[in-house]
Amino acid sequence: MSLSFAQKLDNYARLAVQVGVGLQPGQRLLLLAPLECAAFARRVVEAAYTAGALLVDLLYVDDEVQLARYRLAPEASFAEVSTWSADALIKGSARGDAVLRISGSDPDLLKGQDPQRVAQVQRGLQAYSEPFARRISAKEINWCICAAPVAAWARRLYPELAAPAAIDALWEEIFRICRADQANPVAAWQAHAEALRARRAQLDARQYRALRYRGPGTALELGLPANHRWLGGLSHTPQGLPFIANLPTEEVFTLPHREQAEGWVAASMPLAYAGTLIEGIRLRFAGGQVVEARAEREETVLHKLLETDAGARRLGEVALVPQSSPVARSGKLFLNTLYDENAASHLAVGRAYRVCLEGGAAMDDAAFAAAGGNDSLTHVDFMIGSSELEVDGLRADGGVEPLMRGGEWTQSANPRS
Amino acid sequence: MSLSFAQKLDNYARLAVQVGVGLQPGQRLLLLAPLECAAFARRVVEAAYTAGALLVDLLYVDDEVQLARYRLAPEASFAEVSTWSADALIKGSARGDAVLRISGSDPDLLKGQDPQRVAQVQRGLQAYSEPFARRISAKEINWCICAAPVAAWARRLYPELAAPAAIDALWEEIFRICRADQANPVAAWQAHAEALRARRAQLDARQYRALRYRGPGTALELGLPANHRWLGGLSHTPQGLPFIANLPTEEVFTLPHREQAEGWVAASMPLAYAGTLIEGIRLRFAGGQVVEARAEREETVLHKLLETDAGARRLGEVALVPQSSPVARSGKLFLNTLYDENAASHLAVGRAYRVCLEGGAAMDDAAFAAAGGNDSLTHVDFMIGSSELEVDGLRADGGVEPLMRGGEWTQSANPRS
Repeated sequence: MSLSFAQKLDNYARLAVQVGVGLQPGQRLLLLAPLECAAFARRVVEAAYTAGALLVDLLYVDDEVQLARYRLAPEASFAEVSTWSADALIKGSARGDAVLRISGSDPDLLKGQDPQRVAQVQRGLQAYSEPFARRISAKEINWCICAAPVAAWARRLYPELAAPAAIDALWEEIFRICRADQANPVAAWQAHAEALRARRAQLDARQYRALRYRGPGTALELGLPANHRWLGGLSHTPQGLPFIANLPTEEVFTLPHREQAEGWVAASMPLAYAGTLIEGIRLRFAGGQVVEARAEREETVLHKLLETDAGARRLGEVALVPQSSPVARSGKLFLNTLYDENAASHLAVGRAYRVCLEGGAAMDDAAFAAAGGNDSLTHVDFMIGSSELEVDGLRADGGVEPLMRGGEWTQSANPRS
Repeated sequence: MSLSFAQKLDNYARLAVQVGVGLQPGQRLLLLAPLECAAFARRVVEAAYTAGALLVDLLYVDDEVQLARYRLAPEASFAEVSTWSADALIKGSARGDAVLRISGSDPDLLKGQDPQRVAQVQRGLQAYSEPFARRISAKEINWCICAAPVAAWARRLYPELAAPAAIDALWEEIFRICRADQANPVAAWQAHAEALRARRAQLDARQYRALRYRGPGTALELGLPANHRWLGGLSHTPQGLPFIANLPTEEVFTLPHREQAEGWVAASMPLAYAGTLIEGIRLRFAGGQVVEARAEREETVLHKLLETDAGARRLGEVALVPQSSPVARSGKLFLNTLYDENAASHLAVGRAYRVCLEGGAAMDDAAFAAAGGNDSLTHVDFMIGSSELEVDGLRADGGVEPLMRGGEWTQSANPRS
């Protein structure tokens, strides 16, 4: 029997709070939501209190206000940093609050705006938010990002539908991909998390020295640092609180060596970055660094991204996602990284997650860099997976093992391995 | 020719930014708005940028989230303080941002909630926000409060109308009272501010030692400290930035002596306080302190308010408003202090504005108290004016001068006096 919309919405709100954030009774929750998603955000507030939240703070993000700044503010405005939400995140994470961000925005929000301004605003906020980003990277708190439809995003994905119907259609897609349409979604997520755990255990045991990618426009070899760890699905804070940082999540990921990337890689999807769609990205790496960056559209925005700081030209994440993932099977390009990164294998420029290196969370910056970990104010995923992608694992002894063929894993992960 | 709704709304947004806040080009604006008023808040954002704002931060306040806490949170929740908006106000005011708060809420939002919890939440937030309240009291920044309709408020005021019509009707009332329906509202406000300036100049020159009130249920004498100053209409920051802190504003006000109030006073309207309507308030003062407090409804909430701290039982403001004010002439009880306090003469328990005492802003707490100024975490106005109220000014030489009869000034204020 299929569930009603209200039941699915409740499932989804409870999943976000209990499975995603893993909110503990007596814990505070800091919730960020697009203004347009107020109805869903309020449902999440109720789900959080029902799960025992001590206090829920709800901060609304209004894209129209952001846009008004670009349209109307004086040039000096773009050197200013809007600090109130970053302050809340910094303070809340220091206090041990759980954090849930509901993501949803117009992928074309800042289309046509001066890329210099967009980059300046992004960089200012990233620099200011660094204490929070650092805690997230070290998984010091339990946190999660999930998505909810806003009209401009839904209309972009379903141009054949009117706004309300497009929003409904996007909700149904979100429910399906996040398993909120199932009678027992928590059990479904437990099984899924276990499959991801088995996959990363298998990869951890192999300790490949490098990965090799082949596909249309792609011929790349990435080194992996010694003692890298694959993550995916369930995470734990240092205090042992379990959480799943992304709903949906279909990836296993680790950190590449910051100085070991050689060759060309072509993005397999447009990248929705800072309110702009960058299309046809091709990057050439040498010594781990981007030495050539091209895009068919919005190349300037790509260049600005790579100029954020020195670390923005190097890789911070390598993630493997099979083409049979529920996101990929939807056949949709979501123009939202949370979804698109779970449809395809991907890489990220910028900051590496310290917990991807054994002992990395306790290392100082120099030790982490020396071990091969990259640091940056930014962290931006771009998709390279497709049904034509081949990935090999290169062993330290020179052996080569096929990992993915036709975009799929060559071996099933044995949950008992 | 009467203006369209859109023209009046634009007038009102511009009045709030230019006349109320007195936003300076290059200044940042911190804007707080009820979630339901997003459309108007966005218009204010545009008006602010058009007036040269460097950056506008818009923080939405969601009453439903507050209510969910009362409905669902554990008891321990009410000892917690939600800090994010207070942090933004403290930080923004320290940085010299202008602050605009759009007020609008259901007057019965917290009706039936445990008064102990309501008081605990209020007190926690007030204590935390003290650095901001102190800056406001000393007029260190330019700031303003104005109002906008939300459905529950509008329906309460216009029970005969459906929600959209009630909201429209409340907007029209707001436009009229705030002079936003006039062709040149800025000029209308300049003339109004000049009339208020003349009135306070007249009262400042008299330096009454006390005021005496007579009316139904009221027989009260209030001492005024030496060197008190009457305020009203235009204020200035220490840097000289002009602003009008309330839209609308019809009052002139100063501080009473904290130890000099004797007799009974009866409120002439219900008081909308912390989401509760307190009706039929009667207070007896002795030695400046409330020694008996009664209410026909929600007396417990009144007691909790007076128990906030020691200063909550003493008076911090005395304000005179004629019955011919545009708010009073509307004949409506607004159940919103911003409006109701501008329909009637009133008093406030709690904190006195330091700028109401010559040199008060520079005094330390002890000196301010010794001079007769009251301090508290709270400041709550309650209305005592009516067409039956008589107010006399008592001179130091023993002379008695009639100030108000039948709720009206006995003398016109001479703009040249």
